[in-house]
Amino acid sequence: MQPKPNIVGLPVYQPGKPVDDVKRELGLSEVIKLASNENPFGCSPKAKEAIVRELDNVSIYPDGAAVELTAAIASYHGVNTDQIIFGMGSDEIIMMIARAFLLPGDETIMADLTFPQYKHNCVIENAVIVEVPLKKGTHDLFGMAQRVTSKTKVIWVCNPNNPTGTIVTADEVEWFLSNVPPHVLVVLDEAYCEYIDDSSYPNGLKLLEKYPNVVLLRTFSKIYGLASLRIGYGIGRPDVIRFINQVREPFNTSRFGQAAALASLADESFVADCRNANREGLAQLRSAFERLGLEAFPAYGNFIMVDVKRPAQEVFDSLLRKGVIVRGGFKLTPTHLRITVGSREENDKVIAALEAALQEIAVKV
Amino acid sequence: MQPKPNIVGLPVYQPGKPVDDVKRELGLSEVIKLASNENPFGCSPKAKEAIVRELDNVSIYPDGAAVELTAAIASYHGVNTDQIIFGMGSDEIIMMIARAFLLPGDETIMADLTFPQYKHNCVIENAVIVEVPLKKGTHDLFGMAQRVTSKTKVIWVCNPNNPTGTIVTADEVEWFLSNVPPHVLVVLDEAYCEYIDDSSYPNGLKLLEKYPNVVLLRTFSKIYGLASLRIGYGIGRPDVIRFINQVREPFNTSRFGQAAALASLADESFVADCRNANREGLAQLRSAFERLGLEAFPAYGNFIMVDVKRPAQEVFDSLLRKGVIVRGGFKLTPTHLRITVGSREENDKVIAALEAALQEIAVKV
Repeated sequence: MQPKPNIVGLPVYQPGKPVDDVKRELGLSEVIKLASNENPFGCSPKAKEAIVRELDNVSIYPDGAAVELTAAIASYHGVNTDQIIFGMGSDEIIMMIARAFLLPGDETIMADLTFPQYKHNCVIENAVIVEVPLKKGTHDLFGMAQRVTSKTKVIWVCNPNNPTGTIVTADEVEWFLSNVPPHVLVVLDEAYCEYIDDSSYPNGLKLLEKYPNVVLLRTFSKIYGLASLRIGYGIGRPDVIRFINQVREPFNTSRFGQAAALASLADESFVADCRNANREGLAQLRSAFERLGLEAFPAYGNFIMVDVKRPAQEVFDSLLRKGVIVRGGFKLTPTHLRITVGSREENDKVIAALEAALQEIAVKV
Repeated sequence: MQPKPNIVGLPVYQPGKPVDDVKRELGLSEVIKLASNENPFGCSPKAKEAIVRELDNVSIYPDGAAVELTAAIASYHGVNTDQIIFGMGSDEIIMMIARAFLLPGDETIMADLTFPQYKHNCVIENAVIVEVPLKKGTHDLFGMAQRVTSKTKVIWVCNPNNPTGTIVTADEVEWFLSNVPPHVLVVLDEAYCEYIDDSSYPNGLKLLEKYPNVVLLRTFSKIYGLASLRIGYGIGRPDVIRFINQVREPFNTSRFGQAAALASLADESFVADCRNANREGLAQLRSAFERLGLEAFPAYGNFIMVDVKRPAQEVFDSLLRKGVIVRGGFKLTPTHLRITVGSREENDKVIAALEAALQEIAVKV
């Protein structure tokens, strides 16, 4: 009854604090959560209608292969249906890639600091984790390319990077892919790509045409606002997708998740509205940070990482007491907090709370 | 870009044929599906109400730790909250157990024939699969105990066994557990236990009190009728559950799944009604098989495996043309079909279709 020795010390993921817990613990009536990069505008009304339409089918297994949704996504991106795989969020695609490609002792490269599920899943596979420090909060693709060996199997590039929010550009990724040997699978995690209108951001689908060793990760949890339903997807060459599919659980997405994703994909105006509001929200936060003398990393998704120049945990706690939940606790960055872009009113509230917190807490020398 | 060699030949799960596909392919207006052991009576209305209540929270991540549901299930079973873990169906618990406990070369024992996800997941972990043939459609626990070695890590006992429907009794399981060394994790998959009122069926929770190496698997997909929502759970000792939890994806169940499960748990009359209707449906099917001169394995869940004495594929195809989808394709049993217990009307329909099919197709000598 002993588990694999490599998992004994693994941490269990600590999510952002729930709003209700904070209200109860601190006796607050109003609390806002800008900690989990959720969509402050909810989801498309079309998604809710699709959920209601499925209410009579609760007892029926979902279509394990998600045939209808796969066809819609393939058509949307101009790829073939055998290039798409769905997961319980893109988290599950990460897990499936690790499980399908990594043998104990294989090497896998990722940034330090980046989305924790890459490392978590690769540790479970007993792979050798090669972490390459960020440079100015950004993936050091040159440094990552230098760490490739004949044992390297998978490289993870989070773009924009969670939690720093920075991007690597099309030129940088193109250089990287042309310098990584074709036996290495390169995962481009584009969970936040729909928020980006910067022309330097790479077109993952074009890269996939040229580099068969690329897999793109996308999700319906962010701009589409379906986080509660757990649905994300991967796009790759058919042979790569087939291998991932071979380790997929038979019914790994729900009927509601599939229906809501299908309906959401068709509501382009909801996505456009969220993208515009997010752009304005980022500008609102950046302008406040400037006024407060704080520096933030360049932000491209629906979150921004700011250097509060004080112990992040103290500022986090102060914000919490003021009814604002953000995200701290990032190793390597003891004075940084990650703040999700909220609605205009939520952004106003976090700015006011931050300004008050900064006055309470001394600058860290 | 080569996957683990052991997954290259893995099959992708083939679910039962969807009703709409059969209608379209065969030009039928009415088709019933008794192939996936779904609940013919749907789910509790309370579950649907709970789903509707969550419609405003679609964009918010679910509680990854499922705190409220965990407390309710723990209280329901009289165990502590640290003895419960939820998964995307009990399928995911199977995956997590394999991933947490099996190193390449470890041995794992299961019946041949049983639920295919045990083998599928253990093959992915590069474990050595030890399959012990069923005896009269029933787990050969004596034979399984004899195959235990110092390398054995996990044993899978599906009770009732899917697809044969048979059970191993409390006495047999007690003998088995007292003869399996404590370093071996014994998974008792009780997905269909709520259907059973036979006093010889073991009380898994009592066994867990005595044998710390037991894990029980339960699901909301069957009698609770929540198959589309993908929610199941495991019950075990805290140390075992903690290890499984360490490989769990952070948000592996959906908000709707948690809410619907919580509401379903409280609707005991729905469960009792389904149990009673299933008992009557089993009697209805058994009596028809007797009249048709067919033998079936003793059935305890919401499905029954019958020997049609003819090539199962031919009978399957004939039933399909008559608008009835059942389950065939089981290796080792070329003349057996698995039929889900439906409503009285659905059972009448499958009986009539089967009677007609048997007349069309010659008995296999």
